[in-house]
Amino acid sequence: MPAGPSQSAEDYLERIDELIEEKGYARVVDIASSLKVRQASVTGMVQKLGDQGYLDYVKYRGLVLTDKGREVARFIRSRHETLSRFFSLLKLDEETQKRDIEGIEHHLSQVTLDCLDDLTSFLEKNPATLKRFQQSRSTKAVPNKTSSS
Amino acid sequence: MPAGPSQSAEDYLERIDELIEEKGYARVVDIASSLKVRQASVTGMVQKLGDQGYLDYVKYRGLVLTDKGREVARFIRSRHETLSRFFSLLKLDEETQKRDIEGIEHHLSQVTLDCLDDLTSFLEKNPATLKRFQQSRSTKAVPNKTSSS
Repeated sequence: MPAGPSQSAEDYLERIDELIEEKGYARVVDIASSLKVRQASVTGMVQKLGDQGYLDYVKYRGLVLTDKGREVARFIRSRHETLSRFFSLLKLDEETQKRDIEGIEHHLSQVTLDCLDDLTSFLEKNPATLKRFQQSRSTKAVPNKTSSS
Repeated sequence: MPAGPSQSAEDYLERIDELIEEKGYARVVDIASSLKVRQASVTGMVQKLGDQGYLDYVKYRGLVLTDKGREVARFIRSRHETLSRFFSLLKLDEETQKRDIEGIEHHLSQVTLDCLDDLTSFLEKNPATLKRFQQSRSTKAVPNKTSSS
């Protein structure tokens, strides 16, 4: 990924990009409530991200991402989506997905993410294989059976 | 997993268990060099893990894990092994594996780990499927070819 922002800065850029897409603008108060942090923290981070060239404040329009900021935000979102697609395919429940993805997304290298992306695509394109995998799981999950050797 | 130890405590228990298995004992100096931390930090953490009932100091034998400590250590090692098997199967290089696994292992729930374990076993038992996946990757990786629709 483009070198630079910290884990928490990444969360801000991702959320700002999402807010702009959803509502057309990203206000400090919305960022704060969405990330569950204090408005003062948002103001501090927004200042920092501005200094680092990831976003600008435009009069009457509010916060906007620079090209550099948008590039990072899109990268982060695509990473999140790759993991969501993979975990959904594995039929992990929503809450587990959310917690685990937020925990691991900042710690995976690009080469690992590419590989997981390819594995997900492979399973999506081969539903029979995916079904065989799911069946192998459900067979195994029969409770209170003595395990066969 | 058994509720309790922090991420860094987990690293200590895992390493102590490995040292005992490899050398028969775990000395503060070995733990420090292996985890790349100062001996004073090891002494502090060992004290804490002792207070929490994960290990004991036995005269002439040194540090030993209690049953509770061994249970946690084995859980951590099996989690690490699951991820290693999965990443190795995907043919990720050793260094990437090491870095990514250390980054994510503390952030995955048991249900996700079980699922990855099952997916790994499924691919191990179905080498033809695994081969088809690897081939789909290598086909895609041809450089400078226009992608077929």
